[in-house]
Amino acid sequence: MTKTAAVSGLAHVVTDRLHFETQGNADMVNLTADVRRLVKATGLQAGTVTVFFPGATGAVTTLEFEPGVVQDFRSLFDRIISPAEHYEHNVTHPDLNGHAHVRAGLLGPSLVFPFEDGELCLGRWQEICFVCFDNRPRQRTVVVQTLGVG
Amino acid sequence: MTKTAAVSGLAHVVTDRLHFETQGNADMVNLTADVRRLVKATGLQAGTVTVFFPGATGAVTTLEFEPGVVQDFRSLFDRIISPAEHYEHNVTHPDLNGHAHVRAGLLGPSLVFPFEDGELCLGRWQEICFVCFDNRPRQRTVVVQTLGVG
Amino acid sequence: MTKTAAVSGLAHVVTDRLHFETQGNADMVNLTADVRRLVKATGLQAGTVTVFFPGATGAVTTLEFEPGVVQDFRSLFDRIISPAEHYEHNVTHPDLNGHAHVRAGLLGPSLVFPFEDGELCLGRWQEICFVCFDNRPRQRTVVVQTLGVG
Repeated sequence: MTKTAAVSGLAHVVTDRLHFETQGNADMVNLTADVRRLVKATGLQAGTVTVFFPGATGAVTTLEFEPGVVQDFRSLFDRIISPAEHYEHNVTHPDLNGHAHVRAGLLGPSLVFPFEDGELCLGRWQEICFVCFDNRPRQRTVVVQTLGVG
Repeated sequence: MTKTAAVSGLAHVVTDRLHFETQGNADMVNLTADVRRLVKATGLQAGTVTVFFPGATGAVTTLEFEPGVVQDFRSLFDRIISPAEHYEHNVTHPDLNGHAHVRAGLLGPSLVFPFEDGELCLGRWQEICFVCFDNRPRQRTVVVQTLGVG
Repeated sequence: MTKTAAVSGLAHVVTDRLHFETQGNADMVNLTADVRRLVKATGLQAGTVTVFFPGATGAVTTLEFEPGVVQDFRSLFDRIISPAEHYEHNVTHPDLNGHAHVRAGLLGPSLVFPFEDGELCLGRWQEICFVCFDNRPRQRTVVVQTLGVG
């Protein structure tokens, strides 16, 4: 059932950050090439990379990043967490992004990917996506932390 | 685009547990201060902390922990996974918490946060929340495992 | 509030793969026994195990794996991400599995579990589940990567 590969040594932790602009309203940014490049640049052989968004109105997931799936994924959030619903957050906060907070909490800020032989374990059509749920353009930062052995 | 910080050394794994009471019905508990304190107490410089709920009727996420967002997040689950729906679980289990199981499975039991210079990477308004989906008060335990280099 | 256990040493990364068949349409496979066995086989004392699906039409979660909950969890996706909705993906892709992509993106491809004293930290009724959202039988691979100290 399984094939095992084991690597041992000192632990190395390399913490990187990606900075980019988003347009809001479930704008999605494909981070795959950047994450792959950062993992390679560490020179580490095996371990995990944590892709983490430090914020309350964005989230991280994986998708086949083709325009149809991107639009279908946005439509899901428009259906189940519509900006047209009532949000208590909006009663006390003039930014009117209550739906963005709920969407981000449901999808989650963090994903962990294993890598092996210096290569990210990803499916052929699977891309790492940041989703900006806020209702306006933002400057965003995502933490990419590689932890493994060399 | 990125700024890199690297730390190497022996690996350290510190496993802690938080114990607390919950009221059920999507009661939320803010774990941020406890997780931050536990990471600091390890004395480690960089790595990841895994916040994991060992159970089938609770989950972990991040939210801006203000009363409006907390209520909006609860409303989401009342809309899409209402206790008023039919649940097969409830046919054979007298605890009648079928909705709690489905909610917990959707949100997920585990999140991973990077830390750097001994400090948790969190957004300014982003808090680590445990959500108790069960339909009654419970004693809960959450595992907080810090893995990194010193 | 907390009890601490600490282990230090060289870092070990053991990367395994599980191969299995799925029936599609939210078919669920219980991976718990396999993951537990793989963690034990590493001989490591403490750390994390990452369960990761390298693909765009499946996901990983935890559930009480009894037939009622399994059916209730499937019903959730039939309600909120029904195959009967319109999917842009299906306009350009003849596989007609747009709903599978959206479901997988919502649930997520990856979960991290801590282990301690060589034992996975899981709740008594909590099982690690792979969910195949595709609309046909598939051969699936899941990466199980154990990272810790011995």
